[in-house]
Amino acid sequence: MSGWVQERAGLQEGRCPEGLVSYLREADDFRIVVHVFPDGDAIGAALALSLGLRAMGKLATVYSKDEIPLMFGYLPAVEDFRDVNVISQTDTADATLIVVDCNSPQRAGLSDVRFKKTIVIDHHRTETDFGDIRWVMPDYPATGLMVYFLLKALGVTITTEIATNVYTALCIDTGTFRFSSTTAETLMVAAELVNAGVNPSVVANHIYNTWSEARFMLLKNVLNSVEIHNRLAMTFITEAMLRETGARSEDSDNFVNFPIMIESVVVSALFKEIGPDKWKVSLRSRGEVDVSVIAQELGGGGHHNAAGFRINGNLVGTRQRLIQSFQGG
Amino acid sequence: MSGWVQERAGLQEGRCPEGLVSYLREADDFRIVVHVFPDGDAIGAALALSLGLRAMGKLATVYSKDEIPLMFGYLPAVEDFRDVNVISQTDTADATLIVVDCNSPQRAGLSDVRFKKTIVIDHHRTETDFGDIRWVMPDYPATGLMVYFLLKALGVTITTEIATNVYTALCIDTGTFRFSSTTAETLMVAAELVNAGVNPSVVANHIYNTWSEARFMLLKNVLNSVEIHNRLAMTFITEAMLRETGARSEDSDNFVNFPIMIESVVVSALFKEIGPDKWKVSLRSRGEVDVSVIAQELGGGGHHNAAGFRINGNLVGTRQRLIQSFQGG
Repeated sequence: MSGWVQERAGLQEGRCPEGLVSYLREADDFRIVVHVFPDGDAIGAALALSLGLRAMGKLATVYSKDEIPLMFGYLPAVEDFRDVNVISQTDTADATLIVVDCNSPQRAGLSDVRFKKTIVIDHHRTETDFGDIRWVMPDYPATGLMVYFLLKALGVTITTEIATNVYTALCIDTGTFRFSSTTAETLMVAAELVNAGVNPSVVANHIYNTWSEARFMLLKNVLNSVEIHNRLAMTFITEAMLRETGARSEDSDNFVNFPIMIESVVVSALFKEIGPDKWKVSLRSRGEVDVSVIAQELGGGGHHNAAGFRINGNLVGTRQRLIQSFQGG
Repeated sequence: MSGWVQERAGLQEGRCPEGLVSYLREADDFRIVVHVFPDGDAIGAALALSLGLRAMGKLATVYSKDEIPLMFGYLPAVEDFRDVNVISQTDTADATLIVVDCNSPQRAGLSDVRFKKTIVIDHHRTETDFGDIRWVMPDYPATGLMVYFLLKALGVTITTEIATNVYTALCIDTGTFRFSSTTAETLMVAAELVNAGVNPSVVANHIYNTWSEARFMLLKNVLNSVEIHNRLAMTFITEAMLRETGARSEDSDNFVNFPIMIESVVVSALFKEIGPDKWKVSLRSRGEVDVSVIAQELGGGGHHNAAGFRINGNLVGTRQRLIQSFQGG
């Protein structure tokens, strides 16, 4: 796939590629897809974009391979999401594919479908060269922020509905302005979105205070399993815990971050039982400590502060290995 | 105490009373006091104000009755805080008292001392008529925001040091932009403070990720005590838990908010043992549910979503009373 590619070339903060803006003005029938297991940034960015394009009189449909998590049920227009498999049953010869918050149709769970043109809007580091028009900005904290600037460039009025979707995208990917990706620009845009009608506490309540009782009980059990070895904290989720609490597997999302609240802890390892003698281990660190190295040594991978690997049969040995690795002060 | 009083009279957002601005320009030797058990808003606002006044060539000293919590050790100039009792040993006849984030010298733990002039800068609803110059703005999310506008009105350059103190004040009183007090203006100012050099993730790490191991273990125990009765969640902190974990009493700050994460829970009650058969009960609710009514009935008080009362001898009865009160759907 070749074509016109603009990737952070000559762009300044808040600017969108002219080619993208003019193309969106001219075309119609946009098919917007998000990555598998979509998060609030993917969902909010896709919905905001679809609402903006529709306000311009275009046809714009949003698709997701996986179900939208219940917690995002408050997002305006969220009910418009359709199964990504439906695309292949429609005529796409004159349609434009927009891949949002990821880099390839594969990441969106989309099998081979032909479009007139393909567009990528993403803030993740590029994995592929897919897309006739690529707008990939790894410096942006959220794809939702890119969509916001794009809609402004298109002259779309930022309604409360669009603003709520963009604001949610920003909150999810910046931990509501707590992560290092939070820039002055992020906060400035957040202020504009509140002026457009977003209620920050309503969004925060939806994001942070909609746990099921089962999830809360799972957290209780996970905290009970904590072992602290100097700078390392380890927690464990067994299949029995899931059964006892009635929690779903995805309910443990973010639990690995709890022990990091402890000042002396710089590495948190969450062991999740995924089968007989099989464990999935999530690692988080703060500051200088690089957990990607040990994750790679143990057959996994990841980033400096967030990595992971799987264990097949040697829980005790791996546990010991981690303790030794992070024992020093 | 009489004098010139300006209380939200003809003020617009972001404006400070002219009388206050001109007085601060003229006077020297300011004694800035915060309320007892100062929080991050009081501390940050007082430090920002002192740094600003000093930049204008004034003498400005900050005082606190209680120790500054260790977690605020990163605040620029925090080492300048002196014991409020020291004031009475100094000559205050020509000095101006500025009471920050509270309404009276009593709330600051200050006994009878004579000053040339007294000033109140506070965002809490007025309790007293103390102060020759009163600037009390209940609509402001934080006293730190008032101080920010004041310093701008005074023409003070917002240094990274001042900005970090103001930003911390904002974060503490808005839950880092998650509470209903968060306005577009709050986020706009936050953006300006980041432009002035504040690192949002560094501040967030100091505020949220500096738990002691003892505090974490106390949380674990408190979550284990949870009882859920429909819309009501109850948790308990016994003196034994504090002894076992080595946690301090103030380590349970904010624990009452954890059960509110559960979507079906609208009232959280945290029972804290404070003596033989004596309990302090903190209540939190969300949305419509008013906990101040039952707190008043039980001899306490508070606000719509945050209230409390004490129990002397009748834990079982009170527990039952709460369960009955919030049993309905």
